[in-house]
Amino acid sequence: MNRIQRAVDALAGRIDTPAPIVLADVMQDNIDRMQRFATQQNLAVRPHVKTHKCVEIGRRQVKAGAVGITAGNVGEAEVFAAAGFDDIFIAYPLWPSGTKGKRIRSLAAGTRLRIGVDNVAAINALADAMGTEPEQLQVVIEVDCGARRSGAPPEAAGDLALAARKRGLVPAGVFTYPGHGSAGPEARKRAAEDQEAALTTAVRSLGSHGIRPEVVSAGSTPTVEFATSSVITEIRPGEYVFNDLNNARLGACTEDQIALFVAGTVVSDWVPGQVILDIGTKALGREGSPEIGYGRIAGTAAALSKLNEYHGFLPLPGGGFRPAVGAVLPVIPNHVCPVVVNFEEYVVTDSSGASLERWAVDARGHLN
Amino acid sequence: MNRIQRAVDALAGRIDTPAPIVLADVMQDNIDRMQRFATQQNLAVRPHVKTHKCVEIGRRQVKAGAVGITAGNVGEAEVFAAAGFDDIFIAYPLWPSGTKGKRIRSLAAGTRLRIGVDNVAAINALADAMGTEPEQLQVVIEVDCGARRSGAPPEAAGDLALAARKRGLVPAGVFTYPGHGSAGPEARKRAAEDQEAALTTAVRSLGSHGIRPEVVSAGSTPTVEFATSSVITEIRPGEYVFNDLNNARLGACTEDQIALFVAGTVVSDWVPGQVILDIGTKALGREGSPEIGYGRIAGTAAALSKLNEYHGFLPLPGGGFRPAVGAVLPVIPNHVCPVVVNFEEYVVTDSSGASLERWAVDARGHLN
Repeated sequence: MNRIQRAVDALAGRIDTPAPIVLADVMQDNIDRMQRFATQQNLAVRPHVKTHKCVEIGRRQVKAGAVGITAGNVGEAEVFAAAGFDDIFIAYPLWPSGTKGKRIRSLAAGTRLRIGVDNVAAINALADAMGTEPEQLQVVIEVDCGARRSGAPPEAAGDLALAARKRGLVPAGVFTYPGHGSAGPEARKRAAEDQEAALTTAVRSLGSHGIRPEVVSAGSTPTVEFATSSVITEIRPGEYVFNDLNNARLGACTEDQIALFVAGTVVSDWVPGQVILDIGTKALGREGSPEIGYGRIAGTAAALSKLNEYHGFLPLPGGGFRPAVGAVLPVIPNHVCPVVVNFEEYVVTDSSGASLERWAVDARGHLN
Repeated sequence: MNRIQRAVDALAGRIDTPAPIVLADVMQDNIDRMQRFATQQNLAVRPHVKTHKCVEIGRRQVKAGAVGITAGNVGEAEVFAAAGFDDIFIAYPLWPSGTKGKRIRSLAAGTRLRIGVDNVAAINALADAMGTEPEQLQVVIEVDCGARRSGAPPEAAGDLALAARKRGLVPAGVFTYPGHGSAGPEARKRAAEDQEAALTTAVRSLGSHGIRPEVVSAGSTPTVEFATSSVITEIRPGEYVFNDLNNARLGACTEDQIALFVAGTVVSDWVPGQVILDIGTKALGREGSPEIGYGRIAGTAAALSKLNEYHGFLPLPGGGFRPAVGAVLPVIPNHVCPVVVNFEEYVVTDSSGASLERWAVDARGHLN
């Protein structure tokens, strides 16, 4: 029996399903392995907390050697700042509408805060928001390396950094996200090369404006093993802490390195060759496709073929695997991030299933 | 200008994005219209709170005439019971693992509680959980009418009701969910006919076992307008309270009847013919497809073509619509239910945008 099913069996009767189960030993190995890699490559680790949104896990990452954390929005940053994290990079081109300007100013007063920018209008709006103390905010210029999402062209980095400096903000460096590295196993290395080329150009652009970057920041779990250049100073992986089927398919982790799964109960078995689990989109999100399914039962080839909100449809391939109503099964998600945000807390155990703790998903619902 | 964009403009500077905006006047019209229809057809309305998970909205539904509420799991039922709702149907074939048995027993002590069942093993497990007071729990037999999800064959309803009665539980009736009515506009009426046939058979099966159902309960927003038979006593629509693009495409609502949208801010515009909104899967879920998109900007033909976790990719069709960085845009979701669960609270206004209240998404995160 695989260790995930063993842990679930050991928890039986003590958990209400659906529940996200974390194997703390596997997670700690993931944290330590990433840190070792980064130390070998002389890179700082600044993990993206979007994946776990959990103060306890962030603390473990810092204890292992992370220099600070990456957040995806102001709300996440606020939750971690309130818990004592004092070095936070919001790797997102924020626009300070509503009360966000005030919130950013408050955050910057109590932490070393860095925020992404990719355009002059946002630089001016952020400077306005900082009032008389723009120097308390560091901005990091986002450049695009091929994801075609946010980010300025790399050769525009110098002009943007200069615009920030003119308004009194501190241009701390550049960052990019090689999102196109998730397209397939062969895309990872190419995206990492694109990332390096873009960051090299951006650093040169800064230099030609007389600006020396303090940080040159790169993604991401799928591409990180190729982030070994001398231009990069920092990596921002997020998903590595738990891993998932998507990363295993990309070759970015092994299935043994997956630390989170969702325990679900078989609730109905009337349709021949199918059972229904109490895991639907409200627990798993809708990450997947009819081809790859929407999550696989650990240690089997059985995958959810369809999700309703509270129902997961599990076709049973031929063979002996025919779980009865009441059986608790571990579902490994395709993409772990959209799972976590659905739950109030993790059920934390280890591969033996002996321990049981509950950790809050602290930054859940802090979406803006 | 459409009323949604007008409301967003009136809120400008007062909301942080992404934010789910509810037009309370449109929502109240939806509640009242459904109640009028049901009253005309002599049907009880028992709205499914999975859609809104909000005590304030549940109260408005009851005030309009709903007989009680429908919940999707024990956690939702607990939140509404704690708020004073005393007539709750968990329309789901629950398996009382972990602490759920105790939780169900507590709930049943304080409310009129009905729970779905579709198999004898669950009936026995529920009866065991109820201990010496099984008569406090009413069970409603779930039958399948074509969704091929949970639910026994309709002709098995009588045997299941008898098995429940033998264990001291109270068999209150039968229910079904015509989920296959969402397949397309032409599928709605056919699914409603399947629903009627299945419920008629199930009632006959009960009768042949000497059981007269107190409730014969039917879905659902897409099919409800065809639920006009004499066998059905109760309807359980959920999405009608807000509506969404999927229901508009099915012909189950008009776009003017959509009461919820997500306000997002343009944060980047470097890619020609595209802007990036601060609305990704963490706000919207991943409901949609490349063909229909992942949400449309109200009053325009522009639809999100791709979502990352915090980024929405908005291609700009030809013409004058070219929102600048900082512009706040209203996105109408394809499916409203997976949006709501991402947020802590609704921003509630009306079509004029003049009022502004915040209502908690109370049952969010109560997933088991």
